[in-house]
Parts: sequence; structure tokens; C-alpha cells
Amino acid sequence: MNKFNIIGEALPNIPWEEKPENHHAPVWRHSQNPVIKRNPVNGVSRIFNSAVVPYEGKYIGVFRAELVNGRPHLHLGWSEDALKWDIDENRIEFVDENGDPYQPNYAYDPRLLKVEDTYYIIWCTDFYGAAIGVAKTKDFKEFVRLENPFLPFNRNGVLFPRRINGNYVMLSRPSDSGHTPFGDIFLSESPDLTFWGKHRHVMSKGGDGWWQAVKIGGGPAPIETSEGWLMFYHGVTGTCNGLVYSMGSVILDLENPSKVKYRSKNFVLTPEEWYEEKGFVDNVIFPCATLTDADTGRIAIYYGAADTYVGVAYTTVDEIIKYTIENHEDIADDNELGK
Amino acid sequence: MNKFNIIGEALPNIPWEEKPENHHAPVWRHSQNPVIKRNPVNGVSRIFNSAVVPYEGKYIGVFRAELVNGRPHLHLGWSEDALKWDIDENRIEFVDENGDPYQPNYAYDPRLLKVEDTYYIIWCTDFYGAAIGVAKTKDFKEFVRLENPFLPFNRNGVLFPRRINGNYVMLSRPSDSGHTPFGDIFLSESPDLTFWGKHRHVMSKGGDGWWQAVKIGGGPAPIETSEGWLMFYHGVTGTCNGLVYSMGSVILDLENPSKVKYRSKNFVLTPEEWYEEKGFVDNVIFPCATLTDADTGRIAIYYGAADTYVGVAYTTVDEIIKYTIENHEDIADDNELGK
Amino acid sequence: MNKFNIIGEALPNIPWEEKPENHHAPVWRHSQNPVIKRNPVNGVSRIFNSAVVPYEGKYIGVFRAELVNGRPHLHLGWSEDALKWDIDENRIEFVDENGDPYQPNYAYDPRLLKVEDTYYIIWCTDFYGAAIGVAKTKDFKEFVRLENPFLPFNRNGVLFPRRINGNYVMLSRPSDSGHTPFGDIFLSESPDLTFWGKHRHVMSKGGDGWWQAVKIGGGPAPIETSEGWLMFYHGVTGTCNGLVYSMGSVILDLENPSKVKYRSKNFVLTPEEWYEEKGFVDNVIFPCATLTDADTGRIAIYYGAADTYVGVAYTTVDEIIKYTIENHEDIADDNELGK
Amino acid sequence: MNKFNIIGEALPNIPWEEKPENHHAPVWRHSQNPVIKRNPVNGVSRIFNSAVVPYEGKYIGVFRAELVNGRPHLHLGWSEDALKWDIDENRIEFVDENGDPYQPNYAYDPRLLKVEDTYYIIWCTDFYGAAIGVAKTKDFKEFVRLENPFLPFNRNGVLFPRRINGNYVMLSRPSDSGHTPFGDIFLSESPDLTFWGKHRHVMSKGGDGWWQAVKIGGGPAPIETSEGWLMFYHGVTGTCNGLVYSMGSVILDLENPSKVKYRSKNFVLTPEEWYEEKGFVDNVIFPCATLTDADTGRIAIYYGAADTYVGVAYTTVDEIIKYTIENHEDIADDNELGK
Amino acid sequence: MNKFNIIGEALPNIPWEEKPENHHAPVWRHSQNPVIKRNPVNGVSRIFNSAVVPYEGKYIGVFRAELVNGRPHLHLGWSEDALKWDIDENRIEFVDENGDPYQPNYAYDPRLLKVEDTYYIIWCTDFYGAAIGVAKTKDFKEFVRLENPFLPFNRNGVLFPRRINGNYVMLSRPSDSGHTPFGDIFLSESPDLTFWGKHRHVMSKGGDGWWQAVKIGGGPAPIETSEGWLMFYHGVTGTCNGLVYSMGSVILDLENPSKVKYRSKNFVLTPEEWYEEKGFVDNVIFPCATLTDADTGRIAIYYGAADTYVGVAYTTVDEIIKYTIENHEDIADDNELGK
Amino acid sequence: MNKFNIIGEALPNIPWEEKPENHHAPVWRHSQNPVIKRNPVNGVSRIFNSAVVPYEGKYIGVFRAELVNGRPHLHLGWSEDALKWDIDENRIEFVDENGDPYQPNYAYDPRLLKVEDTYYIIWCTDFYGAAIGVAKTKDFKEFVRLENPFLPFNRNGVLFPRRINGNYVMLSRPSDSGHTPFGDIFLSESPDLTFWGKHRHVMSKGGDGWWQAVKIGGGPAPIETSEGWLMFYHGVTGTCNGLVYSMGSVILDLENPSKVKYRSKNFVLTPEEWYEEKGFVDNVIFPCATLTDADTGRIAIYYGAADTYVGVAYTTVDEIIKYTIENHEDIADDNELGK
Repeated sequence: MNKFNIIGEALPNIPWEEKPENHHAPVWRHSQNPVIKRNPVNGVSRIFNSAVVPYEGKYIGVFRAELVNGRPHLHLGWSEDALKWDIDENRIEFVDENGDPYQPNYAYDPRLLKVEDTYYIIWCTDFYGAAIGVAKTKDFKEFVRLENPFLPFNRNGVLFPRRINGNYVMLSRPSDSGHTPFGDIFLSESPDLTFWGKHRHVMSKGGDGWWQAVKIGGGPAPIETSEGWLMFYHGVTGTCNGLVYSMGSVILDLENPSKVKYRSKNFVLTPEEWYEEKGFVDNVIFPCATLTDADTGRIAIYYGAADTYVGVAYTTVDEIIKYTIENHEDIADDNELGK
Repeated sequence: MNKFNIIGEALPNIPWEEKPENHHAPVWRHSQNPVIKRNPVNGVSRIFNSAVVPYEGKYIGVFRAELVNGRPHLHLGWSEDALKWDIDENRIEFVDENGDPYQPNYAYDPRLLKVEDTYYIIWCTDFYGAAIGVAKTKDFKEFVRLENPFLPFNRNGVLFPRRINGNYVMLSRPSDSGHTPFGDIFLSESPDLTFWGKHRHVMSKGGDGWWQAVKIGGGPAPIETSEGWLMFYHGVTGTCNGLVYSMGSVILDLENPSKVKYRSKNFVLTPEEWYEEKGFVDNVIFPCATLTDADTGRIAIYYGAADTYVGVAYTTVDEIIKYTIENHEDIADDNELGK
Repeated sequence: MNKFNIIGEALPNIPWEEKPENHHAPVWRHSQNPVIKRNPVNGVSRIFNSAVVPYEGKYIGVFRAELVNGRPHLHLGWSEDALKWDIDENRIEFVDENGDPYQPNYAYDPRLLKVEDTYYIIWCTDFYGAAIGVAKTKDFKEFVRLENPFLPFNRNGVLFPRRINGNYVMLSRPSDSGHTPFGDIFLSESPDLTFWGKHRHVMSKGGDGWWQAVKIGGGPAPIETSEGWLMFYHGVTGTCNGLVYSMGSVILDLENPSKVKYRSKNFVLTPEEWYEEKGFVDNVIFPCATLTDADTGRIAIYYGAADTYVGVAYTTVDEIIKYTIENHEDIADDNELGK
Repeated sequence: MNKFNIIGEALPNIPWEEKPENHHAPVWRHSQNPVIKRNPVNGVSRIFNSAVVPYEGKYIGVFRAELVNGRPHLHLGWSEDALKWDIDENRIEFVDENGDPYQPNYAYDPRLLKVEDTYYIIWCTDFYGAAIGVAKTKDFKEFVRLENPFLPFNRNGVLFPRRINGNYVMLSRPSDSGHTPFGDIFLSESPDLTFWGKHRHVMSKGGDGWWQAVKIGGGPAPIETSEGWLMFYHGVTGTCNGLVYSMGSVILDLENPSKVKYRSKNFVLTPEEWYEEKGFVDNVIFPCATLTDADTGRIAIYYGAADTYVGVAYTTVDEIIKYTIENHEDIADDNELGK
Repeated sequence: MNKFNIIGEALPNIPWEEKPENHHAPVWRHSQNPVIKRNPVNGVSRIFNSAVVPYEGKYIGVFRAELVNGRPHLHLGWSEDALKWDIDENRIEFVDENGDPYQPNYAYDPRLLKVEDTYYIIWCTDFYGAAIGVAKTKDFKEFVRLENPFLPFNRNGVLFPRRINGNYVMLSRPSDSGHTPFGDIFLSESPDLTFWGKHRHVMSKGGDGWWQAVKIGGGPAPIETSEGWLMFYHGVTGTCNGLVYSMGSVILDLENPSKVKYRSKNFVLTPEEWYEEKGFVDNVIFPCATLTDADTGRIAIYYGAADTYVGVAYTTVDEIIKYTIENHEDIADDNELGK
Repeated sequence: MNKFNIIGEALPNIPWEEKPENHHAPVWRHSQNPVIKRNPVNGVSRIFNSAVVPYEGKYIGVFRAELVNGRPHLHLGWSEDALKWDIDENRIEFVDENGDPYQPNYAYDPRLLKVEDTYYIIWCTDFYGAAIGVAKTKDFKEFVRLENPFLPFNRNGVLFPRRINGNYVMLSRPSDSGHTPFGDIFLSESPDLTFWGKHRHVMSKGGDGWWQAVKIGGGPAPIETSEGWLMFYHGVTGTCNGLVYSMGSVILDLENPSKVKYRSKNFVLTPEEWYEEKGFVDNVIFPCATLTDADTGRIAIYYGAADTYVGVAYTTVDEIIKYTIENHEDIADDNELGK
């Protein structure tokens, strides 16, 4: 019997493989990774760092598609099993709240989730600098952009799947104008998805280990569990030959999510396979979405690999929370409000 | 007769000197500059980049005081004539909205202005990185901090002196974590000074000339005039031996202040005097406040000089607006909404 | 029937493979790549970024040979089929116009072509900094260096295969003294291969896509076609873990080759195979030579892969020109004279 | 009696002051420096790094005028005594060889000299990067630009005052795209001022002392003397707070001017006075022109001071050549041909 | 019969494979490399850059173990054949000379050797910056740290296997506080392993080839031979995509080991295999230990590969010394005392 | 009556001025500063960062003399009153312990003091990088260099004026190869001035204030007092236009001088006068020596100003120790042993 539970819906057809024998780590890879390879459709060179949701009994996703001109845009994709994907050759077209075209010049690293009856896409957009873009859809046909929630420079916007204390809550990672060599995770609230405030510091880069020494950034939308908000995130370290992106896990307080309850001192997935080690950017694991089944506690994690592929990894709510608690460390003032 | 007028109150005892003979530029210096010199009070090494308002028939100011340990804090000062200042040896103590102490670890480059019946201080504060801090006072005895309006990294927060279309409006300059080598001015709105949004790009660094090629940042609170919001701001250029900060002028649309109406292609004040050329940081003119007399159109500009001194300069609403219009240039999409 | 033709000679024994089924892109790889592997002859660690010509019914090449001491020099190689190469263990010895030894301290990225009755080698040489070196030979036994055409710092010198308006024409890429983080292609003329002038800007880095955002540089000698000069070139983009070199295509005006007629917005070859992704420098495709058959329109492209291998790719004049026109974009003032 | 002589014309009304008592160094300053101060004419903020020639019994100069928008352009100036200057408020207008407007977007650090019956201006111009611009005039009314002699990036172009071995000869300093942190002086020849070649390395930065450790660049047009070409140049050193520009002296071989005969190991003028120590760029002495009187051997040197002022310094051909020979050092292979 | 001999002990069960046919280079790889792969024991992600010695008829090693939190520590390992290793899951615990705990916060790149009757571990430790740590053991159960021999910043400490002229001798590579972009090898002496002095410069980075152009650092403990001290070391070159670490060989004077007798101009091993080309840090060969058999002259070299794996390579004393002498070059003043 | 005393000798003719009225700070300047100006003797451009001792009833000094070629060497100087100095035009000539010439290629920032019957000069010397040089003299005629105590890169070597616990003790500041952007003070011991060890960390840069945020370095030889070793040191902060060097004070434990007892949180002297603000390097106060009178407690501090001048400042042992204690702060683990 599980000690820890997902607070959410059942998803019986979630992709799944059991944990391999003799596998020590709390997360394990899908055996047929990568699930999306190079040149998936005409005009698209690489797909990675993308997000998926269950939709009408099947799956739908918003994908970072790096075109053959090297520019990223968001494309829709559909799947029966969440593993084999049909990617649209055309990008998503956005309109503003008046219905006028409002297309980003580039768009990358989307997150996708449902809050109440609406699906939200949050991505990194151009706003005189990298910033967070937000759009909503109910039918995956019309995509309406909302106001950009924050000033530039910002990346890794992650919306929570429900309001907390009446407000929408978004994580983000204030950045600079280039390949930011630092970065912590902050949280902001909004009563209306237009005006944002009550900004709080959530988590610092650093800690005793070195895998998250350079910067960190939010990953998939947090998963509500009996123990708190379970979030996977990426942590980055530096070497003389560049950066290495790994995945970590953290549990945030349910009602005060700027407070860290437990944060794993160890990465839970780090680049080791050929599709993670080598590609357009070597040594990158960048999680952007999960699928969860509340009945079994199964979690399928979607991550970009080497800025070139999409990979899937598995864990259970019980295993990852247990591991996170047993291997947690306190970093800086993560467990304060962060005002 | 003046063609352009200040929309505001009379201030008959505003500091003032007439424009010198044969002075071509639209702004001229107070003849007894600097008005605040090194080591003004015990424990304070330098005062600069500071803001003043008329208050109860006299003047009060919030001063960037660089202590003998090199850290900046905000100190109050009082003056009869706005030229000779008594500076408090102790820093301003801030509380949060519950009355609990809420002191910044450092505080610099304050702006100070009155909106409706309340005085607001906006400054650069520490929020896990440089960010905008805001506090209010009615009596200059109790100073209550509000929520930080934006995520870091940000500097040069400037509040408008009245609501526009029902919302408070603030300018700021998104930055990075160091001596930011870029920067444009943005605008944000708030219904309540807690939640902020509808962020717009206002002005770009650059233009045909080189004096504002590296970055720009808002200066004193904008002055409401018959022609639009008159704003002085700083523009920065780079040399092989460091940065040079000059002052420019711009007129923003009254109702859509993210639109630039006229922007002077020339600086209106640049470091030339000994107290501007040489000090803790050479070659800096950094305007933070104005006093204005609506009756005469006189404007006294307070600026930090060389991160060491406080200087005063003069112009009239008529002269500066005329100059700005006659010498204006369009830069990038300054005159768009900046969405 | 071909719409576009190569203006040149037949080369019936050109290396060739037909385009694979379901291959969208206009360029396809030789199936047995790389054609030159690590440690090809004693004392030479890697060969890449090299150039070949048909010669006396067979093929001859000038190869960038990275020695076991890490320094690059130019070595000759011979082949029957232009795929299997015999590389000379000894470097090419150069003399000056008096017959005295005039050996470069290093030499890399050679181009090789015939103008009238003479073969010219153009390479990156040491001239108190990286610069363009030029030598001529008629018999591949005596190699006479000419004056260096340009001051340092310069790379990617590419001579046109015939005089235009009576002058020799050379492309080059002005650079800086290190791993240049910028770079456009320029053109220069010479009546005599000694004095050069009438320098013109040809093409800018940049464009809507990101694959050529950092710098570009000329590739093989331009191919004269019915539509204009067809040139393959390299475009470079930056990631947090280094640079990525792809190949683009452009058509220059026949009589005013500093004018761009059509420039593909997309790369036509980008690192995807193991020998392109991983080696001494990851993710490099660097084209230096083509063989062309005017009868069939076939083009074999020789490119360095990962600064470690030599690869071959194929296209036809019809296919590549059609693709370039259909996918062209205007960048900056590429289609001006560039004075 | 002088041991060394200027080969040139008499200039009886050359500006002149005798060497002060107890002055050890071979160069001494004009006692009323700076001869041009801040804001010399309306719209011009600073004049410096400028060049003068005798003309029709008086003097004429081409001045680097930094406008009130921070951009540099070239302005003419006239003087009776070469010390008090009338500066034109309008910039020089250039045409191309067809008489069409051909105006540089910026222009700085001009040199000016007469070769045969024509005056030449050489300056740093924009050519998709900093490069050398050249224009000619006979009447200082019409200014015709010639072809840019070199590809970018280049600065400090200096033409010799006569042909050598039938060719025009120009010095230049290949650079990079920013505040170049390196730089040597090269020489190029041209039969026609259109095509340039036979590039040679002349002098290296460095040497035993540190004052020219970072970079060097040519100064005024070389002075023909009985001992060789006497050239003043600038040498730059680095400190933790920026660069320092001093002036050195060198004698080049008359017939092979890429060969250094004697090069002073010491600077001959270094920033020490207030107008050299402090201004827009601190600690800069940048010589751009000389006036010489062959009868007396007097030399007046015009130099930019602190990127803000124009200064004048004096020496005699005898004193400076004697000093240069007595204090010379050999640096790298300066005394080779530099091929 | 061998011309050159190892001065030392026999090691009959040394790992060994004969040189492959047609292998030109003087060093060849173990055919079953890597001998230690990813995730060798629970909690350890990667092992590399490690050192081994024969011990009681078997083998013992001190391993750089990169934990799953990304921090390096030293772990013991045991082996029968020096190829298959049992790694301890727990790190080595150090005490000071009083027996109190004295644990480094991190520890990497260990060397291990026996001097007289004691085993010494030398590694890179934290001492308010990267510095050399030293500990001794006789039984591999108690590990006593000695005083840190040098001030930070230093790396690659290598102790000689016997005293020379009565003093202990250590090589090291003075560094800076980051990924040092320079570095030469120095030598220091100590009468007592507490106080160190008589520092001498041994070898410079650089040389005619480029493979050791950026920096060099000592490798395994030098091997005493009839010709001098044989040392393998690493040399580093830079590319636009990062550093490449190769292995070189040098012979130092037996009695004055700061004098270089012969230094190979060529690398003797460079990254070419998948486990050297790709991992946590691409393109790294980093030798830290050798096993030697004086009877046969066989040498087994242990090296870290790509900061991820342990590899083994082979040579013989005769082959490597012959190669080093035949291919030697003099670099800077390597063959001087280096005072 | 003084609470704190100097443990040392009387020096009745010490330079002295009383503290000015209304001067808050604990240190005050000599009214006739600078005591050494530009061009003090032929061939020497600037003297600064220098050290003096009483000698045979008068004073002698070792001066950093920046020659007219920009290279620093050490020159002797003599004075009757320690204010007016006769500087030798020739540099000090050093020999090694065998009497052979052993001249540094450059030498700067000397400290000078007497230990027992011998005078020691400690300076920054070239040892394949910046390092600490040491020489001894008894008569100021013969100067014998000892072994360099430490490996490069190191600066600011400061010897204590007596042995502690039987060993010589030296402070130093490990650095990197350029304008080091970090730096703490360490301490090392030696039984014989040849071998050094027992290295300890003494003091960290940083603290609550910003004036010593970038780096710190030892100053004059510590002064033995009843309260501990009194040391003046320099602390450096960074601005967008360069570094600013101020002076701080600290008291170290008499018997365990790696332990800080009290460290002033405030600077005690910061650049404010023209000779400190502006020169070859702006905004530098760099103390290198003191003279002390045990009878009166008077202390005269010699400091380099702006890398151009020598200044003198005054305090008393009582005043400075009282100030240091009253304004002390604990930084990092300064008050630990620093092992």
C-alpha cells in the first residue's frame, strides 16, 4: 500500500514500464527512448522540451519544434498512447483577447496544463527580451494570449494546476539576456491572470552537491500529493566544456508553496544515454511535463534530451516522495517564505 | 508667454538661477554645485542619486547615503531652501504592513513623490537580487513597505504622480545580476499597488547618437505638462575606460504613457564639471528628482554626480519641451504600445 | 529536363549516389561517410576541411592535416574515384616568387580551384595573426606563394573560378584574433593577384532563423550556373555548450557578385550523423569544395565533419537552386552593392 | 648645428615654445594647453584626435567633432596661428568619384596630409565595421571619397607624404570589432590608391617596458628626415581601471619603411596634466598630426587629450631623433621586412 | 634487449596486452576499456582520474568518485587483477595528526604512491580555494592528513617516489580560482613534508604543436628509469567548443628533476574512442597512475576518460623513452633550473 | 593616558601632525601630501606603494619606481625627516646567496622591515608569474635574494617583525595571473626563510559593507601592540568604472596571528583627495609601511596614491585600536585558525 498519494484523476492508459531490476535510482527510463527523433516532420529539425496532457481519452501535446531555419515555435501533436506522436507541420497561431493575430517571434520550452476548465500554455516568448508568455484554449483550436505576466528577462514559467488561497500561482526563473549563468526559482500570485504580485523566492541554486550549482528552473506543472506539491525541476552544473542539465525533485508546502518541505540533495536523472549525452546541446535532461495516474501513483515524465529528442521516464509517487524525503537537504533559506 | 505648461502646483520658493549668457544647451547648472559634498554627516561617506519633495512649506528628501562601510542605505534630510540640507545620521526604518520590521539589506537610488495624499519611496532593494522596493508614508515618521512590485532583476523604478486610466503606473528597467550592459525602459500598471501587469516596452537604448547606446533608465517622476509626461532619464555610453552617464529628455503620451511622443536625440546634460567627472565613479550624471513650479514653469533637477555628490540643474518647461521637440528622433518602435 | 544548368565542364566519373526515398532536404549524404577517418597516415591525427579537383583524369586534393602535435598543415592526396584517398605523409613545401622557401607556420581550411591554366590554393595562414594565404601551381609539384591579399585578421578566403569584369575576385570573412564571435562575407577584386581593392560587403550573418546567427563564412569556390554563382557556405549558431556549424546555399549575381539574388533561409545540411556530431569539435559541417558535372548537373560537396573527418554530400544544380529560390529570404542589405 | 634634418619645407610661423628649464624628456607641452576646450561650437561637445596642415599661408584642420548626440563626425577648422581655431558647425560632406553623396555614418581620428598636389584625409569610418576611409581634396571645398583601402576591422590609417618606390604607402592597425585588446602596425602599398597589397608587418606591441604592452597605432603622417621616417605613434597599457595611452617615437627605413631602424623604449609623452588625465576617457594622449619647419627642425605635435581636448607639444628633429636612437630597443622582429 | 630500464620492482601480474599490429603510436589502449563504467556502486555516478598501487600481492586504488549529488570524494577500491575493481560505497575518512577528523569538503584527482614504507595520497582539496592535500597511510585503514604543502590555488600535485638529495619532491600546477586557462608545472622540495621551498619551474605549456597550448599538468608519479624520471602528463588545447585533454611524455633529469631532458613534441594518447570523446566532459584523457614491471619494462597507465570512465593503456619503458627522445623538442627554458 | 601601547622602540623624530578639528575618522592625512610627486628623478615617471624604515638616525626607503618605459623596479631613497626624499636614479641590484647577479625582471609594491639584526625587503616579483620575492640586507649596499617563499601566483607578501613560536611568519594574498578579481589573506610559517608551510587562512574579503567586497591584501608589516598585531591592509570594491582601493585596520592574535581578534567594518581611509582620486590608476590608497613611536603611540602610515604618488597619514595606537574594536565585525571564519 502506498504511503503517499497523488491528489488528482485516474489515467489508466498512462504510458508505463516497471522499474528494471537492480536499478538504484528512483526514476527509470522508457526502454524505447527517444520517443521523438530528429526530423519528425517536414520543416522541423528537432523536437524537445515539450509538454503533453490527456485530452478526450487520447493525448495532446504542445511541442518545441526547432525549424530547419533554427528558430523555435510551438506545434501541436496528437497521440493515442502518449508515445507515438503525430506532429502538426504548422505552428500554433495565437490571437489576442480581441481576436487579432498576436504571434510570438519565437516560442520555446512550453508547459501545458489544465486549470479548472481551461488549458494553459506557458512558454518562453520574446518581449523585448526572453519572457514568459501565456495563452489559453479550451478546444486546442483557438489559442488566446493573455498579458505577459512578468517583465523580461525570465524563463521557465510554470503554472500550478489549481488556485491556492484564491489566486493563480506561477513559478518562474528570473534570468538575464543571454545564457544566464545563475538562477533561482520564484513564485508569484495573481487574482485574475492579468496582474501579478506577492512575489516570493522559492528555491536557490547550490546546495552541498554540485549538480545544481549554476542555476535551477521549474519543470513540469507541480503534482498535488498528500505530502505537498511534488515538482521535478532542472539543475545545471558547469564544466570546462559547458553545462550539464540534470533533473531533481522537491516537495513544496501545499498552502504556502514558496516554502520547501523536502528537496532531494541528489539528482534523480542525469544525462547518461546516447540521446541525452549528444545532440544539438550535449548533456541535457530538461523535464517539461508529467502524466499521472492517481489510482496507481504512476508518473510518466516527459523531458527534452540534448535539445534534440523527447524522452520519457517513470517513477511512482510513493518512490519519488520517499526518496526525496530520505535524501533531502536544506539549502539557504528555501524553507522560508522568501519575501 | 509660455507655449507649454506644467500641470501641477505652484512652488514659489523653488531653487532657481537664470540661464547664463551664451549657454546653448537647454539645461544649466546651479552655480554653487555640488550642493552636498563628501562626508556630509558622521558615518556617511557620500550622498548622491537622491530625491526631494516640498513638504509643509519646506523640503524633505530621501537620500542615498553611502556609509563608511561602503553600503548604501536611505536617510532622510530636511531643508529650508532645498539647497542646504540637514541629513539624518540614522537610516530610515521600514516596517511591513503588519508593523513588523522589514528592513532592506541595502537600498539605493531612491525616487520620492506624492500620489494623492501619500508619499511613496521607490528604490533599488535586495530581493535575492537587485529589485524594486516600494514604501509609503504620510508623515515621514512611519514608513510602510508594500509588496515588491516585480521579480528581480530590476532597477530604476519610477512611479507616476497620478493614476492613469484608474491604475497606478510604474516605469522600471529590467536588468541582470551585475553592472547590466544593456537596458530599456518598461511600464507596468497596478490597480492596487500589490499586483502588477499590462507590462509595456516604452523606450529603447540606442538611436543615431552614441550617448545612450549601452542602456537607459528612468529618472525623476514624470512631470505632467500640457504636451505630455515630461521625463528626464539617464542614458549610458561605453568607452574603453568605463561608462559615461548623461541625462536626456522625453515626452510620453499623457493617456498611453508607453508611447513616446518626442525624444531628444541629444543629451541635455553630460559630465563636464569636476564633481561630475571625478569621484567614486567617474563621469556620472544621474537625475532622480525634480521640483517644479507650475506658475513659472521652472524646473530644478536633482542629480547624483560621480556617485559622490548631489548637483542641481535648471530648465523651464517651455525651454526643455521646445528643445525636445525640435531635436527629437524616433528610435526603434518607441512610439508603439510596446506589447 | 533541368531548368538550371552548370556553366562548366563535364565530369562523368564524379562520385554520385541518388537521393534516398523520403528525404525532404535538398542535400543528401554519401552512404559510406566519412570518406577519410582518424589517423589516415602516420603522423597525421585528423583530416577535415579540405578541397579536391579533377586532375588528369583522376583527382587531387589539398588536405588540412592535423598532425600528432596538434598543428595543421597542408598535405596533398590522390584518388581514382574521389572517395578513397592516398594522403602524402609530408606537407606541401611552398616557395616565394624567387624560389626561396616560404613555408607557413600553420595552414588550414584550404580551398583549391583552377583559374584559366593555373591551380590556386587559398588557405588560412599565419601573418602576425590569421590571414589569407594564396599559392599557385600548374603541376602540383612546385607551389609558389603570392602576396597575402589582405591584412589580418581574416579567414575563409574563396577565389572565384574566373575573372569577372577583368578582375580576379575573392571572398573572405574579416575576423578577430580568436574564435571570432561574429562575421560577414566580403568580396574584393584584383587586377593582378597582388593588389586588392573595391572591397564590398556581400552577406550578413543573421536572418529570421537562428542557424546562421553568430557568423557565416564562404565555402567551396562558387559554381557558375545559368542563374548566378551558386555558393555553399557555413553558418554558425551558438548554444550554451558551444557553436554549431551548418551549411547554407546562396546565389550571387553573375556580373555583380557582391549582390545576393537568392539566399536560403534554411540550412541545407546540419550536423546529425555521428561523425558530424562528435569529434575534436562537436557539431561541425564545414564545406570546402565541390565537384560538378555540367552534363548531369550533379554536385558532390566535400565537407569537414567535427574537425575530424571528411564527408561527402550530394545534390543537383536543379534541386539546390530551386530550393534556394523557393526558400529564400532577404537579410539586411545583402542585395545591395555593399560599398 | 643640427645633426639630423627634416626633409621638407620651411614653415616659419609654426607654433613654438622653447623647452622649459630642467625638463628631462625630449617632448614638452604648449604652455596654454588645451588649445581646444569643451563645447567649442554649438552642437559639438568635444574636439580631439584631429589633424592640421598649413594651407595658403594659414592653417586648416580636419577635426574629430563629438556631437551633442555622442556621434563623431569630421568638421573643418581654420586658424591664423594654428593655436586658435574656428571650427565649422557643419560636418564635411563627402561625395564619391561620380559626385554622388557618400557620407560616412560616423568618422573619427582623422589624419590629413598633402601628397604631391592633393590633400588626403584618412579616418576611421563605418564599413560594416570600423575600417579606414580615404578622401581627397584640392580646395577643401569638394571632398571626394576613394575606395576604402582595406577590409574591416581596421583603425589608425596613416598615409606617407610621398610615394616610395613608385607606390603610395599606408600604415594601419588591424583591429577587431570592439575596443581591440591587441594591435600591431602594418604597412601596405598601392600603385593607384584603389588596389592595395604587399602588406608588411612593421612594429609589434610589447617590448621591455609596459607602456605599449596592449597595443600600438600609427600617429601623425611620418616626417621624412635625414635619418629615416620619423613617426610618433600611440602605445597603450592596461591597468585594473582601464587603458592608458602614451606617445612613442620610431624611425623607419626611408626606402623600406616596414623596417624599424630605431624605436624608443620609453614613451616620449604620457598623461600627466589635468586635460590628459581626466575627461570623457581618462589618461589618453593620442597624436594625429605634426607641423614641421625644415629650416629650424621644429616640430609641433597635435594630440587628442582624454578624448576631450586638443593639446600641442613641441620637440625638434634633432632632439627627438637623438633621444630615439639613444634609448632604442629591438622588439620582436620589428627590423625585418615583416612578410 | 631493452636499451632503457625501469629502476624499481618487478610486478609480474601487471595488466598487459601486446601492441596491436599496424599501430604507429607508442601507447595503445586496453581492448576492454573502459575498465570502470558509469554507476559502479550505489550513490556513485562516475569514477575517473584515479590512482592504483600494488598492495600485498593484489591491487588497491584511490578513486575519484563523483557522487549522485555531483560532488567528488575519494573512495578505496580493491582488485585482484587491477582491471576489475570493487569500489567501496563509503568515502575515505581522514584524520589530522592528532587523530581528530579532518575531512575535505571535496577531493578529486588523487595520486597514490609509496615512498619508503608509507603510502601517500595527494589530491586536489578545498583550502579556501583549490589546493593540494596530502595524506599518508601504511595500512589503508587509517589515513592521516599532513599540512597542505602549498597555498591555493593549485592542482595536480604529484609526489616523487623517493627523496632526491635528501628532500621530498613534489610537482604541482599553480592555477587560478576557476577553470584555469593557463598553467605550467613547478617543483618544490621539503625536508619533512611540512615546510616546502626551493620552488622551481619545470615545464611550460606551449611548444610548436597546439595540443598542449593552453595548459599542462603532472600525471602519474614519475617512473625512475635509467634515462631519467619518466613522466606522463596531460596537455590541454582549446577549441571553439571547449578544451581537449591529451597525454604527453617527458624525461626529467634524475638528480635535478626541474630540468627537462627530453619532452615529446607529440601527444602519445589523445581522445579517439567513444568513452574518451563523450561523457560528463567530452574529449578528456587524464592520466593519474601507472603500474610498472621492472623485469619486462611494461607500463600500464590508468587514465580518466571524459570525466566519466577509467581507461587503461600500455607501453614499455623502451618504446616510450625511445619515442620521447626521437620526437623531442625544446620549449621555452624547460631545460634550465627554472629559478 | 593611553589604554593601548606599541611594543617597540621610540622614534622621536617620526613625522607628525595633530588630528584636525572636527575630523571624525580615526586616520588623518599629512597636510602637504603628496610627499613624492610625478617625475621625482630622471628616468622615473611615478613613485608609489613604497616602504620606509628608520636607519642610523635618519630614514631609508625602498620605492616602487615606475620607469619612463612603464616597468616597475625598486629604488633606494634617503631622507632626514621621512617626508622629503632623495631617490636613487638607479635600481637596487640583487645577488643570490652565492653572490651572483639575480635581478628581477620587474619588482613592485615593496615592504621593508627589520627582523632581529637584518632588514628584509619583500616585493612582488616575476617567477613565471607574479610571486613573492624576498631579499635581505644589513647595510643597504648588498642585497641578497633568498628563495622565493611561495609558488606563483601571489602578491602582497608581508613579513612579521619578529618570529612567533620560533618561526618566521609571512602574510600573502594568493592571486591569479591577471588583475585578480578575488583574494583573501593567508599566513605561512618558516623555520629558516627557505622552507615554508603551516599555511593558514587569516581574513576573507567581504563583510557587511562593500568597500572590501572584491579582494583584500596585507599592507605594512604588522605593529606589535598590547592588544595584538595591528595591521593596516587594503580592501577593494568594484564599480562599473573600475576598482576602488581603501585602507582598513585589523588586530590579529599575538601568538596565533591567523586568528582575527577585531576587524574594523569600516574603511579608515578612502580616496577623497585629488592625488588619490586621479592618476595612473584612479581611486587607489595602498598602504605599504608605517613608522611608529612607542613612546607616544604615534603612527605615520605611508601609502601609494592613485599608482602615482606617495602620501602620508597619521593616527595613534590608542585611537586606531579603539576605533577598530568599537566598529569591529566578524566576517566568515576569520577568528578561526583557518586550517
